[in-house]
Amino acid sequence: MFQGADILRQVRRERPLIHHLTNYVTMNDCAAVTANTGALPVMAEAEEEVEEMVVAAKAAVINTGTLTPSRAHSMRLMGKKAREMGIPVIFDPVGAGSTTYRTQEIKRILTEAAPAVVKGNAAEIGLLAGVKGTVISGVQSVGAAGNSLEAAGRLKDFLGYNAVIAITGPVDVITDGRRTARVFNGHSLLPRVVGSGCMATSIIACFSAVEEDYFAAATAALSFLGLAAERAAEALKGTSFGPAMFKVLLIDALFLLTPEFFAKEAKVEIRG
Amino acid sequence: MFQGADILRQVRRERPLIHHLTNYVTMNDCAAVTANTGALPVMAEAEEEVEEMVVAAKAAVINTGTLTPSRAHSMRLMGKKAREMGIPVIFDPVGAGSTTYRTQEIKRILTEAAPAVVKGNAAEIGLLAGVKGTVISGVQSVGAAGNSLEAAGRLKDFLGYNAVIAITGPVDVITDGRRTARVFNGHSLLPRVVGSGCMATSIIACFSAVEEDYFAAATAALSFLGLAAERAAEALKGTSFGPAMFKVLLIDALFLLTPEFFAKEAKVEIRG
Amino acid sequence: MFQGADILRQVRRERPLIHHLTNYVTMNDCAAVTANTGALPVMAEAEEEVEEMVVAAKAAVINTGTLTPSRAHSMRLMGKKAREMGIPVIFDPVGAGSTTYRTQEIKRILTEAAPAVVKGNAAEIGLLAGVKGTVISGVQSVGAAGNSLEAAGRLKDFLGYNAVIAITGPVDVITDGRRTARVFNGHSLLPRVVGSGCMATSIIACFSAVEEDYFAAATAALSFLGLAAERAAEALKGTSFGPAMFKVLLIDALFLLTPEFFAKEAKVEIRG
Repeated sequence: MFQGADILRQVRRERPLIHHLTNYVTMNDCAAVTANTGALPVMAEAEEEVEEMVVAAKAAVINTGTLTPSRAHSMRLMGKKAREMGIPVIFDPVGAGSTTYRTQEIKRILTEAAPAVVKGNAAEIGLLAGVKGTVISGVQSVGAAGNSLEAAGRLKDFLGYNAVIAITGPVDVITDGRRTARVFNGHSLLPRVVGSGCMATSIIACFSAVEEDYFAAATAALSFLGLAAERAAEALKGTSFGPAMFKVLLIDALFLLTPEFFAKEAKVEIRG
Repeated sequence: MFQGADILRQVRRERPLIHHLTNYVTMNDCAAVTANTGALPVMAEAEEEVEEMVVAAKAAVINTGTLTPSRAHSMRLMGKKAREMGIPVIFDPVGAGSTTYRTQEIKRILTEAAPAVVKGNAAEIGLLAGVKGTVISGVQSVGAAGNSLEAAGRLKDFLGYNAVIAITGPVDVITDGRRTARVFNGHSLLPRVVGSGCMATSIIACFSAVEEDYFAAATAALSFLGLAAERAAEALKGTSFGPAMFKVLLIDALFLLTPEFFAKEAKVEIRG
Repeated sequence: MFQGADILRQVRRERPLIHHLTNYVTMNDCAAVTANTGALPVMAEAEEEVEEMVVAAKAAVINTGTLTPSRAHSMRLMGKKAREMGIPVIFDPVGAGSTTYRTQEIKRILTEAAPAVVKGNAAEIGLLAGVKGTVISGVQSVGAAGNSLEAAGRLKDFLGYNAVIAITGPVDVITDGRRTARVFNGHSLLPRVVGSGCMATSIIACFSAVEEDYFAAATAALSFLGLAAERAAEALKGTSFGPAMFKVLLIDALFLLTPEFFAKEAKVEIRG
């Protein structure tokens, strides 16, 4: 049974602190998304304080956009401390494969932080998994991406421990090796919003902060974001607005969606 | 008598330059808020130029969100230069008490920059003042915060010089030791906007740039922001928008509010 | 003949990758503007990867807001690599003249990266060109700016190679030394939006990525942004919104404008 509505209720009741080490481009959006989902964002980045800060958090985000050596160092420190304390790290390997440096740092973070959930688009996950046929242009995946599930499986083999892999796309695919979920909520305007991938990661963190079945949390989070996108698109219909207003409506929808509506409208298929 | 409308008029006439060393999460919002209030924002951060930049400014903001050692160094350099030149520093000790590093750097900045105004929520100010019973979750204050005025008084003792202390909350409290103001303008949606605290600091800086009675400037600034929140909430009523559109309306309201309307609708009580 | 509509069509067909080294204040806006114009933004900043990243791009932006030594270093590395590979660099010398450090770094980038297009307001360009009578307050030019064309000519002499100079203002002026364009599209609300100058630079980069006549690309880009501002202002008329909603409408307009409408409404005068 899909327990997404219960997870959402619990986020809003507990208001968990979510520590982010994310990129500078979409930082403000991630904070807004976290707050509007019902949690508390914090984005301390100095190596002098990330360990102490993450201990106070219930989940942590690592996102490798605008990576620098000092931020990568903070990410590894924070990730190791979170792992040690049993705090789930949600990892978004933005730009994996776009440069040697980026890919190398991403693999190092994967190994040292042992994230509970790795979330990416098909190209990023495919590339990390060594699946052929993926093409990456900057931080945007373009063209053939191979089979999502195959890529997820290979990445799990690379990791060598039981992470949840979430691959976003027209249909999102989530797997923990045993179970596989497909999320059909969403809208074609969502990938047009810069940072919608980063937002997805923040929401997975909000949900993972209160639900230790991270497969269930990630599945519910992507369904929740997809449903918000559907609501935003509906509100946009018949107006002469575009993607910038869609983003405003999307963040508002995260705040306005009730657990009851979520329970009714989630389009999720789980196997295994 | 409350001279807020005159201060606002003067900001718009003089368009003072406001130098910011603020956090990366809400930087864009702070710039927009400063511009829409009527002043000019600038956000140079390199230690190589902060002293030269602040000398051209009429007020400066220091905000400790996303602090790093190199930014803390720039903050101290800028703060000392501003102090030397008689340029008011408005200090927002974001996240005070959340980590040892943060609290330590905040105390160092307080000592070296001698800010004209210290603005925080009750938990941040309480913690800096050593008042018991405050709890901080990340950068968000949660739960009991002690008595605002008591905390303000103790912080003033710690500082050992005559700063204005401004504590935001459902009712904002401002004191310079002799006089105390309470600001009743505001709306419950305001604290739901990520960065509304940072925005308050930027507006205090805009007002302090043209009014050397910083107690009057800080009081007027918080009333101005609160009134903008009331206007935004009114515009939101009956629509199906949420906090993201509220933020758009809030920033617009700062631009649209006239000194005449501000004079009429400010809800401020001053004693002493 | 004005070929702006064809350039826009080509941007949307090719979706070129645009690498940015821009400031932290308006980074999110620049990414949104790039995406809504039809290109793909990427904003990698580490010296370890900027060269590899720019090689995958079709144009690059360098913007000196929030400059630091390490970012200036990345800018020079990226700029030299782009120059070597024939990838056009669009340079926005934000804050030129505001501090000794900033001006010095800007001149160094100008020399080492040899940008294809230098874009600034009249004060910034005038100051770099050594024209008297310019005044800069922070990153905002205030007051007399001298003659735009004279300033452009002098800057070209300083550069010693054939860059395109674009000077934004109520009427934008673009010159390559031989030809001069004046762009009459625009709206008085545009300069009220923090970051509208940065947005202009991103759009020039989008257009220069697909059109190697950078004079034509820069002219078309400023006309395109000006036209979007006109559309946004029209949508705003009769509402009780202000500059924050104008920004939403502006970014939406970039997405919604068709090449056909652009061909019809561009107000550009080219001589030479």
